[in-house]
Amino acid sequence: MHTVLVEAPGGHYPIHIGSGCLDALADSIPADATSLALVTNVTVDALYGERVRDLLAAAGKPLVTIALPDGEAHKSWDSLNQVFDALLARGHDRKTVLVALGGGVVGDLAGFAAACYQRGVRFVQVPTTLLAQVDSSVGGKTAINHPRGKNMIGAFHQPQAVVIDPDVLQTLPAREVSAGLAEVIKHGMIADAAFFDWCEAHVTGLRALDAALISQAIRRSCEIKAAVVSQDEREAGVRAHLNFGHTFGHAIEAGLGYGQWLHGEAVGCGMVLAAGLSARVCGLDAAAVARIQALVQAIGCPTRAPALGAGRWLELMRVDKKSRGGKIHYVLLPRLGAAQVHEVEDAVVAALLLQSGA
Amino acid sequence: MHTVLVEAPGGHYPIHIGSGCLDALADSIPADATSLALVTNVTVDALYGERVRDLLAAAGKPLVTIALPDGEAHKSWDSLNQVFDALLARGHDRKTVLVALGGGVVGDLAGFAAACYQRGVRFVQVPTTLLAQVDSSVGGKTAINHPRGKNMIGAFHQPQAVVIDPDVLQTLPAREVSAGLAEVIKHGMIADAAFFDWCEAHVTGLRALDAALISQAIRRSCEIKAAVVSQDEREAGVRAHLNFGHTFGHAIEAGLGYGQWLHGEAVGCGMVLAAGLSARVCGLDAAAVARIQALVQAIGCPTRAPALGAGRWLELMRVDKKSRGGKIHYVLLPRLGAAQVHEVEDAVVAALLLQSGA
Repeated sequence: MHTVLVEAPGGHYPIHIGSGCLDALADSIPADATSLALVTNVTVDALYGERVRDLLAAAGKPLVTIALPDGEAHKSWDSLNQVFDALLARGHDRKTVLVALGGGVVGDLAGFAAACYQRGVRFVQVPTTLLAQVDSSVGGKTAINHPRGKNMIGAFHQPQAVVIDPDVLQTLPAREVSAGLAEVIKHGMIADAAFFDWCEAHVTGLRALDAALISQAIRRSCEIKAAVVSQDEREAGVRAHLNFGHTFGHAIEAGLGYGQWLHGEAVGCGMVLAAGLSARVCGLDAAAVARIQALVQAIGCPTRAPALGAGRWLELMRVDKKSRGGKIHYVLLPRLGAAQVHEVEDAVVAALLLQSGA
Repeated sequence: MHTVLVEAPGGHYPIHIGSGCLDALADSIPADATSLALVTNVTVDALYGERVRDLLAAAGKPLVTIALPDGEAHKSWDSLNQVFDALLARGHDRKTVLVALGGGVVGDLAGFAAACYQRGVRFVQVPTTLLAQVDSSVGGKTAINHPRGKNMIGAFHQPQAVVIDPDVLQTLPAREVSAGLAEVIKHGMIADAAFFDWCEAHVTGLRALDAALISQAIRRSCEIKAAVVSQDEREAGVRAHLNFGHTFGHAIEAGLGYGQWLHGEAVGCGMVLAAGLSARVCGLDAAAVARIQALVQAIGCPTRAPALGAGRWLELMRVDKKSRGGKIHYVLLPRLGAAQVHEVEDAVVAALLLQSGA
């Protein structure tokens, strides 16, 4: 097992990574917890619920399971309220601890529930998708969606611990593996060109979930993300780089309706667009653009942007949290392994979208 | 004008107190705000909305007014979502600033909206009830209610500034003045026996909103609350003392249905019960209990507890945020001007409730 530390103002905590590390889950439960709530979805509950409940029994606390409907469409107030109702019905107090078992939807929602329940209780992340393991479970961003935009209602609330066992990925559909790999390769693009090279070289093994390769990819992703979050918890600066491809990606998710494309798929396609914009705005060379497009394709994500029309694209991106005073800011790459934030004129973006058939 | 400073980890900010200080409201708007949202209720909007919009115009920012229905029953998800809908429809970004104009319901709800919108934006408190001026606008506690309990969903989120103009109290119904005075005298009971004496001596002038007396009462209340919050923002210790009378009070509000009694009325009655419990548990003398009951009555708050039945009282208090592991903790007074937290056996509380006809 390997441990990566996050040292943010809002909390210092370990990310435990390794085959079988789920077995030690009870060690991550604070001793003074009065009760536990396992927040998951019905799909994950059927696969891992019983095992995790057995493991948590070692902590010796009363436990309630809250199994939400599966899918991005349920990252909603209704699901959030289902958590609050269950906690209040059982009399869970401020010393309760939530355990988020699932992908990004479960982690974001359970984390936000923990941020708001009685003005804040503790929680532990147990991500079960590759995307959640390499991205959303680390860093304390929690949220639910609003019909007008993804993650519009949320909080920064750091977990007590993140427990990442790659073994649970064996039950993950191939499409979700591809979506998770989008965030893996993103870390290379924005911060570590050598890791990008490594991903290119091992893409087949990564998609096949080769144990050593996938553990290495998770570890490097968590190291990069933990370093960024420790430096800039609230996204005043460098943390914004993690949003590479996300402004376009969020527009895809909102434009097509949440749940049509997986978040990672939208980000994968968004990174291809952001690479194209980088070439126009800050000099990313054509070879790098081509490598980015090829790697997004090789991991199994879509590279062709949906045809929303430039006006709709810009409208959707303007409501995204990266906008300031009506101007859209984009994370762009001057070269592989480095990122910058640029304010770009709508006309430049519209030209790119037109050329991309979007 | 007098300024009291709050110096909490979550934010340092001024509380401006004084007749006419509303006129300088625009000075409390951060220069880099991209837009403003005036969150109020329909009653306050009719009284002060136009004047406040004129004052905010000096800040030179686009402004939207969000006027919610009036009353504790509307401290709900529906109202919160009304704020989010308006902000998103107008494209308010992370640099927007919310201005909460109203009583405790508006301040708590607008503060929670600010805590969650795009994971946190800034806000300014402009309290227009005595209760909000001496209590809820200071200290960063924000929340909405849940059918199973008051303030169950919320966050700690400190404002940028609090602007308290006692002149606006002239339009406040007498019943609301009484409810606000309950929190004023609470500050004397828990932290300053001389201030309690002063309140006893000036109760008639305070109820009549004598300008000098009410300003002095607000200032001393804010000084006491600011000192407590600066020392213990997240209620790990001494901040709990501010909840004197609130465990009983919240049970009254929930038991009768939110909005039947005003919060301050419920707290007033709750303080009489808590004084009686203090006599049984930690030796508050009978003369002090009688003075507390007499002063609660003199300010115009109810002193007779509603007859919910002891079982229902205890059930309602157990879900309150002050409970830990199913045990109810009470803030009690060993003497006037000092507070302690005690875990009290249900049987002792039940005996008190029975004796009180509750």
